[in-house]
Amino acid sequence: MTTILDGKKLAKIINEETKNDVSQLTAAGIKPGIAVILVGDDEASQIYTRNKQRKAERLGMTSILKQFPASTEQQVIIDTVQSLNRDNTINAILVQSPLPAHISQSTVTEAIAPEKDVDGFHPINLGKLYANEPTHYPVACTPKGIMTMLDHYHIPIAGQRAVVVGRSILVGKPMAALLQNADATVTITNRQTQNLQSITKQADILVVATGTAHLITPEYVKPNSVIIDVGIEHDANGKLIGDVDFDRVADLTSAITPVPGGVGPMTIATLMQQTVELTKWSLENNG
Amino acid sequence: MTTILDGKKLAKIINEETKNDVSQLTAAGIKPGIAVILVGDDEASQIYTRNKQRKAERLGMTSILKQFPASTEQQVIIDTVQSLNRDNTINAILVQSPLPAHISQSTVTEAIAPEKDVDGFHPINLGKLYANEPTHYPVACTPKGIMTMLDHYHIPIAGQRAVVVGRSILVGKPMAALLQNADATVTITNRQTQNLQSITKQADILVVATGTAHLITPEYVKPNSVIIDVGIEHDANGKLIGDVDFDRVADLTSAITPVPGGVGPMTIATLMQQTVELTKWSLENNG
Repeated sequence: MTTILDGKKLAKIINEETKNDVSQLTAAGIKPGIAVILVGDDEASQIYTRNKQRKAERLGMTSILKQFPASTEQQVIIDTVQSLNRDNTINAILVQSPLPAHISQSTVTEAIAPEKDVDGFHPINLGKLYANEPTHYPVACTPKGIMTMLDHYHIPIAGQRAVVVGRSILVGKPMAALLQNADATVTITNRQTQNLQSITKQADILVVATGTAHLITPEYVKPNSVIIDVGIEHDANGKLIGDVDFDRVADLTSAITPVPGGVGPMTIATLMQQTVELTKWSLENNG
Repeated sequence: MTTILDGKKLAKIINEETKNDVSQLTAAGIKPGIAVILVGDDEASQIYTRNKQRKAERLGMTSILKQFPASTEQQVIIDTVQSLNRDNTINAILVQSPLPAHISQSTVTEAIAPEKDVDGFHPINLGKLYANEPTHYPVACTPKGIMTMLDHYHIPIAGQRAVVVGRSILVGKPMAALLQNADATVTITNRQTQNLQSITKQADILVVATGTAHLITPEYVKPNSVIIDVGIEHDANGKLIGDVDFDRVADLTSAITPVPGGVGPMTIATLMQQTVELTKWSLENNG
């Protein structure tokens, strides 16, 4: 029996909890706030940004958008980040990717106050995650959401072989760190990996985040394993396609995420959840 | 034919280079300086510290020792770190482990200015390493020294399977990050790993840093692989013993580090080398 890991359903549960948390905080005079910085007019980025804003507002948070033309100088963006760092009504700062080529992603990321870095991209937060420090720090929302999903479905991690295909800073690397911190034996693959199939076939937990549609076919899969698909490709009709050939692979697995309706809804729910966490941590530290 | 990776010999070459660099810098009015903070009277720590100091002095650097009794309050250590952060004659700050239980290792580490964190333990440096940022940042000296050794002996890394046994912040984690940044396919194992032998047997490059004497016997080894032994155990006579059963394993490998005379000498040579690098970077950044 294959369990379909229903991210859409679980995201609803998490959003309900977040909404409750927000209303309790707001009643206590602390309304969580998220700020999104959007530079340029990339269409997909505008859609993502709008979705995040709407979700934040629906959950009762303050949501502000700082939008700039593509030609904006880097220093203007840095100044904006620093002013949001000082703004007590803002608990989470998110800089929408991609930035125009003349703006350094890492310089902007490092300008964000680590305690408001809701994407978990600041090197100090990534370093704390990799070191498995026992303190609060924000973590990239997609892998954090995947961990919530694994936990919700009671999937064992400690002692399991986990393989993460892809090593982006958004997904692959923080995912590998989280699985390692949960005592899995983790392998990360990359484009130069030889005989990928022989490695993925060893995975009790396989997380795929490559952006290559239907890369994972039955030959790549260990029977009864758990497969998490972070696919974000679109076909010619705009339909989202996974990195996993779900139709051919699903029956082999003990649990698998669908695309859409798996990891995607968890990411935005986790972004909102983590904004509330950052708000609570700021109260602990300042109060 | 097995190549013995001679860390003692390579360390001498590196120390010669460091000495030359130091004398050039000193001639230009910039004498590299390293400061070691030692808390308590752990005997091994005192020996390590003395060795580091002597080596620094022999290479022509400024070397200062800040020694405190075990009962010293954490704030005194933090204040010392901060004063060294501001001291222009000091380019590298090293806090000798272990610290007494009442002092937080992570609080002290995070107090060190990242650009003087010669051990590479500050989370921002570990995060930059894990993210593979294309900027300067210090890296833990043992794994950095191992990379120098692999490079010196022209051992290919990209596309190779690497297995790191042990996930400490001193060795295992930065080692895995360095190998991954060099495009190896990396697996880190831990105490909960099942059937360790089946994993290490897949390693083209096997790095062992567990502190378990002679853990790695022939059954754990892929023929013609490269084995790096970070063993630091001592037998009853005080003799250093490796994590690898060298006598039984060496013939199977294409290259292997002896213990002693492999990784050990590279670590201290790398510490000195990196102190010079930090000095040079500080000159680049300050004009």
